[in-house]
Amino acid sequence: MTGETLQIGLAGLGTVGTGVYETLCRNHDLLEARTQIPFAVKRVAVRSLARKRDVEIDPALLTDNWQELVDDPEIDIIIELIGGTEEAYRLVKAALLAHKPVVTGNKALLAEFGSELFQLSAETTTPLYFEASCGGGIPIIQSLQNSLVCNYVRRITGIINGTSNYILSSMERKGMTYEDALAAAQRKGYAEADPTLDVNGWDAAHKALILAMLAYGTPVSTENISVYGIDRITATDFRFAKELGYNIKLLVVIRHHADKDALELRVQPSFVSRKHLLSSVYGVFNAIAVHGDIVGETIFYGRGAGKNPTASAVIGDVMLAMRECRHPENHSGFHPYTKRLKVLPQEETVTPYYVRFLVQDRPGVIAVIAAELAKYDIGISGTMSSPRKGGDGGEGTCDLVFLLHACPWGKLCEALRALHVHESINPHPAVFRIETLNEEA
Amino acid sequence: MTGETLQIGLAGLGTVGTGVYETLCRNHDLLEARTQIPFAVKRVAVRSLARKRDVEIDPALLTDNWQELVDDPEIDIIIELIGGTEEAYRLVKAALLAHKPVVTGNKALLAEFGSELFQLSAETTTPLYFEASCGGGIPIIQSLQNSLVCNYVRRITGIINGTSNYILSSMERKGMTYEDALAAAQRKGYAEADPTLDVNGWDAAHKALILAMLAYGTPVSTENISVYGIDRITATDFRFAKELGYNIKLLVVIRHHADKDALELRVQPSFVSRKHLLSSVYGVFNAIAVHGDIVGETIFYGRGAGKNPTASAVIGDVMLAMRECRHPENHSGFHPYTKRLKVLPQEETVTPYYVRFLVQDRPGVIAVIAAELAKYDIGISGTMSSPRKGGDGGEGTCDLVFLLHACPWGKLCEALRALHVHESINPHPAVFRIETLNEEA
Repeated sequence: MTGETLQIGLAGLGTVGTGVYETLCRNHDLLEARTQIPFAVKRVAVRSLARKRDVEIDPALLTDNWQELVDDPEIDIIIELIGGTEEAYRLVKAALLAHKPVVTGNKALLAEFGSELFQLSAETTTPLYFEASCGGGIPIIQSLQNSLVCNYVRRITGIINGTSNYILSSMERKGMTYEDALAAAQRKGYAEADPTLDVNGWDAAHKALILAMLAYGTPVSTENISVYGIDRITATDFRFAKELGYNIKLLVVIRHHADKDALELRVQPSFVSRKHLLSSVYGVFNAIAVHGDIVGETIFYGRGAGKNPTASAVIGDVMLAMRECRHPENHSGFHPYTKRLKVLPQEETVTPYYVRFLVQDRPGVIAVIAAELAKYDIGISGTMSSPRKGGDGGEGTCDLVFLLHACPWGKLCEALRALHVHESINPHPAVFRIETLNEEA
Repeated sequence: MTGETLQIGLAGLGTVGTGVYETLCRNHDLLEARTQIPFAVKRVAVRSLARKRDVEIDPALLTDNWQELVDDPEIDIIIELIGGTEEAYRLVKAALLAHKPVVTGNKALLAEFGSELFQLSAETTTPLYFEASCGGGIPIIQSLQNSLVCNYVRRITGIINGTSNYILSSMERKGMTYEDALAAAQRKGYAEADPTLDVNGWDAAHKALILAMLAYGTPVSTENISVYGIDRITATDFRFAKELGYNIKLLVVIRHHADKDALELRVQPSFVSRKHLLSSVYGVFNAIAVHGDIVGETIFYGRGAGKNPTASAVIGDVMLAMRECRHPENHSGFHPYTKRLKVLPQEETVTPYYVRFLVQDRPGVIAVIAAELAKYDIGISGTMSSPRKGGDGGEGTCDLVFLLHACPWGKLCEALRALHVHESINPHPAVFRIETLNEEA
């Protein structure tokens, strides 16, 4: 053991905060043995002192004023797990100004105030750690900052929302409807009472912004990212996807277009080939594929949320903070490499597509669609129709799937709009991108 | 940028050394921007100055005497990539004694001299980095040391030899024989002219010893580890495996038995359920599953060998060394947690099994085998026989597969020996462990 006992201030004793406190107690000897640094949790800030808690904790440690943690000269490191953005922002700012390294897992905070807080961290030479903000227990942040540091990142593709992946898994494996799968996720505690941010893609989008910032140094505002959720996916699309050799996953795609000095950044349910590992990531698990120019393809897989996996990531950061806090100027500070990339407008992003039209089951409909696509110079790689009688529209209708060659999203939208005039074609087809992911082994 | 230019000495300009040198040159601006530390390669030690090289390098940088790197007071960090063990040992020892941090990817060196070198590293407060020694470009070492630091590791299961995984992939996907698959791997440059260490499991075993040392602090000598290679696997076993829902992979298994204060450590081709991601790792890719008490299951996937992926890992360590070398006492030194575990004798390790007997195709053989297994209290969960006429032994023979409930390896061996007296049963059945890996999502 070396030096004085390092004192930790923990702000927030919700689910993750409790996991962090419990683990710091339960695995205390392990951590001291591995780091050779003695440490203790000195103070824990909570919203309400009166609230009954699931964790045994000395009431003398508790305070309902986080400012006490910042002001306490004996506290060396602060863990921010209070959630939300406004108060968390004030806490992190105050801690950095007091030269106390901060560990946070607050992705919404970083999406909203990241640029400012990272700048403050640099100005005060006080590190800000955020492994837990993306991918739960998966060490994606430290890997991008350290092990993969020599790589120009060509592409990041990830499943980084456990709730939606759990819902999609239930739909695929058990044939459940979206509504039933969501209800089941809520019963299991994998979805909040209000699941909006999880199922509409924005939780994944917040994490994508953090990954893009690390990989490219390009701060992307939330207006520049194209985000679609999973709430309109049907069992019919899962059936077709399976038949075609795909699975449907809510994917984050970040791709560097060197020729255009541009970044593609989008979140949407996509068709993923069953030959790629990402297609086999089930339940609440997350996986992030990072393709670097030197390392090739790497994938990081694990529990993307939950009390203990997230606590594992937080504590990994805390131990790093402990090692570094005696010499903050020696901090493993990672400075994102910035080349001022523009964000590629969604209309210009190019992939192949799966489009399922609900049509009147009569001769000539395929010809109409094919002719319209040809006008827009969009190639067709295959078509198939529902084997059963009657499409999602009932008797007399039919599901007609078109697989399209790669073309810009904007062009596809134009072609689909042009089809609106045809009465026999429902004007709201189901459209999925088909992601090109494979690297040949 | 902060401080003086850090000077790197590179020893070894083989495949990986060339990849490191090229990447340090090509991605130099990226690395300086991300680390904010200016650096240069000051000197490169090679075996022969006369040899023609694939890489453009100023001849003034070259020396055929690595001692010059150690003696040069301006060199801050030394990269050891000369391979072998004797000379590499002398080099690393000399560098640590000269207080120059060392980055190495030499697993054979660590397997043979690791204990001594890590002790010297501690005594001299001079870090020794070794990310590239296991899993090529996969950041498994830094993840175990940092991000996952709070976890008691329950189990590590990995595919960590790319050559044998390439061979097994060819056998499974293309129906090739072992000999043809090996020849194809050699033509592609994925197997050495002498592939012994790769296909007999010992390369994977060396890496397993490093992982076990990190996770448990238990130095395991090579005599205590049970190692089987892939050279006796046949197409017949791949066919049965597929039918039963498994794939065959050369697996490293490290498992902690808390109840016995013991470590299970073995390398062998195993049956892996097709529902587990490890079964879908193909070609030269590696994947390592780490199960921690807090984080649950995590998997790290990527290219396990080759010039550039390994260079990526080496450079990740070099950048860490650069950040830390101004304050070596602040090194992210990871001290394995030691609880003096004994190594579980192979005979006591317990799994379910697949056993394929080659037998004379006549009534009563199943009864004989079942009776013998019953004597040893080994349960049968299923049997099946080859659908075609004639087993691997030709006309009049038959492949008879028994799936056995979990039992100690020693007991299975006794039962199999007892069957030797039966003339209608070939005394060399194919035996595979069936690994229990799944964590429910």
